Amino acid sequence: MPVMNDEVPDDSDFDAGRARGEFDHVTPEDFIRGTGRGNPPGWLSARDIERTRGQMPIPYVEIVPVRTDDLGRVAQVGSLLRVADDGSIERTLITGRVLFHETLREAIARNIAKDLGEIALPVLPAGLQPFTVAEFFPTPGLSEYYDPRQHAIALCYVVPIAGDCKPQDETLDVEWVAPDSDVLEVFLSQMAGGHGAIVRRALAWAGQ
Amino acid sequence: MPVMNDEVPDDSDFDAGRARGEFDHVTPEDFIRGTGRGNPPGWLSARDIERTRGQMPIPYVEIVPVRTDDLGRVAQVGSLLRVADDGSIERTLITGRVLFHETLREAIARNIAKDLGEIALPVLPAGLQPFTVAEFFPTPGLSEYYDPRQHAIALCYVVPIAGDCKPQDETLDVEWVAPDSDVLEVFLSQMAGGHGAIVRRALAWAGQ
Amino acid sequence: MPVMNDEVPDDSDFDAGRARGEFDHVTPEDFIRGTGRGNPPGWLSARDIERTRGQMPIPYVEIVPVRTDDLGRVAQVGSLLRVADDGSIERTLITGRVLFHETLREAIARNIAKDLGEIALPVLPAGLQPFTVAEFFPTPGLSEYYDPRQHAIALCYVVPIAGDCKPQDETLDVEWVAPDSDVLEVFLSQMAGGHGAIVRRALAWAGQ
Amino acid sequence: MPVMNDEVPDDSDFDAGRARGEFDHVTPEDFIRGTGRGNPPGWLSARDIERTRGQMPIPYVEIVPVRTDDLGRVAQVGSLLRVADDGSIERTLITGRVLFHETLREAIARNIAKDLGEIALPVLPAGLQPFTVAEFFPTPGLSEYYDPRQHAIALCYVVPIAGDCKPQDETLDVEWVAPDSDVLEVFLSQMAGGHGAIVRRALAWAGQ
Repeated sequence: MPVMNDEVPDDSDFDAGRARGEFDHVTPEDFIRGTGRGNPPGWLSARDIERTRGQMPIPYVEIVPVRTDDLGRVAQVGSLLRVADDGSIERTLITGRVLFHETLREAIARNIAKDLGEIALPVLPAGLQPFTVAEFFPTPGLSEYYDPRQHAIALCYVVPIAGDCKPQDETLDVEWVAPDSDVLEVFLSQMAGGHGAIVRRALAWAGQ
Repeated sequence: MPVMNDEVPDDSDFDAGRARGEFDHVTPEDFIRGTGRGNPPGWLSARDIERTRGQMPIPYVEIVPVRTDDLGRVAQVGSLLRVADDGSIERTLITGRVLFHETLREAIARNIAKDLGEIALPVLPAGLQPFTVAEFFPTPGLSEYYDPRQHAIALCYVVPIAGDCKPQDETLDVEWVAPDSDVLEVFLSQMAGGHGAIVRRALAWAGQ
Repeated sequence: MPVMNDEVPDDSDFDAGRARGEFDHVTPEDFIRGTGRGNPPGWLSARDIERTRGQMPIPYVEIVPVRTDDLGRVAQVGSLLRVADDGSIERTLITGRVLFHETLREAIARNIAKDLGEIALPVLPAGLQPFTVAEFFPTPGLSEYYDPRQHAIALCYVVPIAGDCKPQDETLDVEWVAPDSDVLEVFLSQMAGGHGAIVRRALAWAGQ
Repeated sequence: MPVMNDEVPDDSDFDAGRARGEFDHVTPEDFIRGTGRGNPPGWLSARDIERTRGQMPIPYVEIVPVRTDDLGRVAQVGSLLRVADDGSIERTLITGRVLFHETLREAIARNIAKDLGEIALPVLPAGLQPFTVAEFFPTPGLSEYYDPRQHAIALCYVVPIAGDCKPQDETLDVEWVAPDSDVLEVFLSQMAGGHGAIVRRALAWAGQ
């Protein structure tokens, strides 16, 4: 079962091997909403991403979406229900790799928009110091994070969502639960590959 | 010249020595907007605060107000122009001590409301890990932070301001400046007691 | 049951009310090893500390002692067995208030030396950004941290111990346990007032 | 001029394309001291690293070496003098990419050993939350960090060095300077690509 959002190559894959100069005029908007050509800049073909996954760690951002109250306290934690590649349903967080020439902030905004839609109104943090760095390995047991496809280094952020969520693409639903709810434990146990541990750390960091 | 907002005792000082049980029904609203009796719970008389200042470090929160763009980047940094106790004008940040039985979040919200008004719409962070801890001493030169009145331990936070600022009380004006503006250096040099260094660290932490 | 190390006034209490100028020649050594007069500078009499505890939050440092391996990973977490004021045995961390005119680093080093002895060789962090800030209130249930004596704001640090521990004063023993040991859960459940939650957050922050 | 340590392919490059199972028995020692085959596991051929550099961001660790005093304060900051690929001398920090199947801690230890030798005795942090994340782009001006070869995402750590430094390989010398020395500014101005800004942020984070 895949444990992170995957690159889903399509006919419009376009950028592998192109000159770096092509990025000179790329704007955040191009990454976050695409360039009208189907994939954001920096997207790779199935062949290229597969080869690289066997050669080096892949940088990811991983976002724990939360609802906060007036004083900034976490009132609810969000998780996604998604259709996995094998057709099963999985519970996960918002996660995706950082693309070539994309900033971390663009990657965070793009992945949130991809999963929660364009009117989620995420409140990105003023600083990019992650609350934790999760190291996923393709070898089970090497760390508490496991991803059969790759070695991924995920910078993890808590991002308050101020707007409305309209699940997109493979995302079927977004479910919210209070940090002190019994349901939280159930949700965390449904997250594969260590993503539940990331939520626990997010709540520890948030003081809850 | 005072370098931190001071407790300004008035006739309605009321809480020194009272039983702790009195706090059982205190709400965040009581701290942030007062209880209709002039001062928030936990306020001390001039005599009590003065005595304590000579005996132990006083916990403070210090807020660097910022305006952020859609991606969370700091677009502008705010500073306050205030009337100091000696009648002079000083440039400072938003700062105040944490009151007895007040949470850090309440102290942050209360001090922002006190200086920027009720519709500033501050976006408090999901986690309370400060970007730095500033240690103010009454002895010049002991650290880079100096406060002639006291030994203060200030937990420092960057807080985006999403609403409108209506300066209150001793605050005359809020001035905003871009992080890369030449004016920033002028502003920082006008901040006494090391508050300018706090802004520099805030921007370093924010990646700018 | 007391949940934090307490000030234990003795006949040599000396500093309440003295002029601030007396601190001009105080050295870190004076705080950490005392001045030969029984208590470090900044110590308060029973009457003064009691009065202040009813008036304002008291700044504390709280240290999670750890043993680390060559790569800096936490191999063991330490906890203290102490004689409480009522004669019972309690399990706790290293904690103490920051004294007047004492730096955070001095407070950390002093409290470690007080509990673990002079040859513990603590490795203080290069930066003083705490992994969490624990807010203890005298009202049960207001936060997950409870201290019947006071409102305390504790800056929490993980500090590797490289030397030998010789428990001092009220400290009977230091016990070490691996983060993945079943015994850890037992130990954490024996810590009152929320100190167990601080260990959990320390381990979450440390990636374990 | 190259601004980060580079992969220097040699005849013993061996791992591109091999099965992941080969990593099952790799130890930290293999990464840090090599396997006797010239390069650590995860090393790539010149062709593979070059192709990947044009396709995705490369994860790096970047270390600011420091000397600390008994209280953990930064007494000196280190920088390296190195022979660049074009034969010129450059001043830089300790930096290197994270290899496939290598943990962040192994990458930090390996790169320190490579530059400072086997008896530098680095004190790795108990937690891996970086003080900043530096985003290097091959397009000048996109961020304050620039690397003509690649888009690199560098997790930045301050690491105290407790032992003796024996510069290795391309590293000619390690020079130490006090944070308040005038020489620091000169050194920082000699660091290309934004590495000087990383030192500034490290010192801001360390409270100096």
